[in-house]
Amino acid sequence: MTSPIFQRVVIIGFGLIGSSLARAIAENNLAGEIVCVDPSEEVCADVRELNLAAMATTDAGQGVQGADLVVLCAPVGSYAAIGKAIAPHLKPGAIVSDVGSVKGEVMATLGPELPAHVHFVPGHPIAGGEKSGPRAGNGSIFRDRWFVLTPPDDVDPDAIAKVSALWSAIGMTVVRMGAAQHDRVLAITSHLPHLIAFTVVHTATELESDMQGEVIKFSAGGFRDFTRIAASDPVMWRDIFLTNKDAVLEMIQRFTDDLTNLEKAIRSGDGETLEKTFAQARTVRRGVIDARQAYDATIRS
Amino acid sequence: MTSPIFQRVVIIGFGLIGSSLARAIAENNLAGEIVCVDPSEEVCADVRELNLAAMATTDAGQGVQGADLVVLCAPVGSYAAIGKAIAPHLKPGAIVSDVGSVKGEVMATLGPELPAHVHFVPGHPIAGGEKSGPRAGNGSIFRDRWFVLTPPDDVDPDAIAKVSALWSAIGMTVVRMGAAQHDRVLAITSHLPHLIAFTVVHTATELESDMQGEVIKFSAGGFRDFTRIAASDPVMWRDIFLTNKDAVLEMIQRFTDDLTNLEKAIRSGDGETLEKTFAQARTVRRGVIDARQAYDATIRS
Repeated sequence: MTSPIFQRVVIIGFGLIGSSLARAIAENNLAGEIVCVDPSEEVCADVRELNLAAMATTDAGQGVQGADLVVLCAPVGSYAAIGKAIAPHLKPGAIVSDVGSVKGEVMATLGPELPAHVHFVPGHPIAGGEKSGPRAGNGSIFRDRWFVLTPPDDVDPDAIAKVSALWSAIGMTVVRMGAAQHDRVLAITSHLPHLIAFTVVHTATELESDMQGEVIKFSAGGFRDFTRIAASDPVMWRDIFLTNKDAVLEMIQRFTDDLTNLEKAIRSGDGETLEKTFAQARTVRRGVIDARQAYDATIRS
Repeated sequence: MTSPIFQRVVIIGFGLIGSSLARAIAENNLAGEIVCVDPSEEVCADVRELNLAAMATTDAGQGVQGADLVVLCAPVGSYAAIGKAIAPHLKPGAIVSDVGSVKGEVMATLGPELPAHVHFVPGHPIAGGEKSGPRAGNGSIFRDRWFVLTPPDDVDPDAIAKVSALWSAIGMTVVRMGAAQHDRVLAITSHLPHLIAFTVVHTATELESDMQGEVIKFSAGGFRDFTRIAASDPVMWRDIFLTNKDAVLEMIQRFTDDLTNLEKAIRSGDGETLEKTFAQARTVRRGVIDARQAYDATIRS
């Protein structure tokens, strides 16, 4: 059992990630106490029932009082408002961190709202799932995954070290990266795949009435995997696309160009181009497995 | 233990599906003996080592002698050649079936090669995985999945009933469908999702050198799932796209139109359209789970 890194940790937003973080912190004894802030009374009631926090409140200003660490686990579009609400109540020396999937915009909107006497250490755990809400949380989702820290240059190294220690203690490998590089890497590894999954599911749904329920019936051929990715939280993803616009639009353009090339190969019967492209894609899977970011199982559902 | 439906079953192509079918038939005692035909000497050696068939040969004509049922489990592009090779050796009353993912083209190319004294009963099990080869097979992959039969109108009902009984006995629910409808449903539920996964992986790979290995490192954010789908057999998929061209091109067009609309919403900051589209996609996942085509697990890898 490790000893607490922080006395009072306040988690703002008890969705999948927030509630999973609360569980992981509790399981590893990393905080003296955990406080839940969530705008939903229903979520606060769930948190109390599940005993995930010492206190649960819808009032962010009240919630962050006395906090040593505040972690924003809310949709990134709400950061500016949360920043305004908590700023007057943060004690000197408090650390404010987050788990948002977009870092450039977050730093630009949340950073300026915070008083000079707090340490701002933004971060992003590359972990998650398609479920939402405090009941979907699981303390083990962070294990063996990457945590990306994108602190501004002038942040206190001790504050960075403490945030890093917390995520390391729950099983993550912590790396530092510039916010712009993070946003570009995530645009291709996460944001574009999600946008495409949402799109395919939308396209298929439009066809569904024409196909008399057969799209869902025969979903095991590939579509099923897209529905899983597309089951992720709509508000969270809306905010990601709106706040990482430039990098996402670049990736859409690259993807569209590549799809057009494959479409031309299909139209002209160019089997060689198709086979070569597919064979290259297969080797990438091997790289993902070697990097231990996937299990090597034959049958998935 | 069920009693054998067929005396001699010949499976042509011992990849993932062929070897899984052989295992499922053996496990359920559905054939007096299984014969393996595969063009690869290496595969035949594996089949002998794994004891998956009474006999393994690279000679299709020799292999199908005395067969009561022949099941083609090879890439659909090879069907015409296989048909020519086996036609002179099929005994009267033999049933020829297959597992190809495209049915219109298969019926047009394989059907005419077969002698009038055999029964042609094409089919497609909606099951699979990204691994290939006889070692990747697993007799349980068919369980609780759909099998689509697309027999021509004039086929002997007894032959259809026997093929249907085989797939039912290994756990599949058998449905009949017209070949054109099958190809359109599969184009949206399977072929388009695979093409898109291949494309995303290709796009990301082109960026990888620029990003110094970070695409694979941070693949857990969504890209990982695409690499899994894109790890499927390149030759099999080349043939699927070449033989289901019209339906696939229609689905690419529909998808591209929908992606363009979401791209416009991102560009113009139209969060309402994004959230609405994403929320609709989420409800489709519920339909897939209710149809028992996916397990309802929170954390996947």
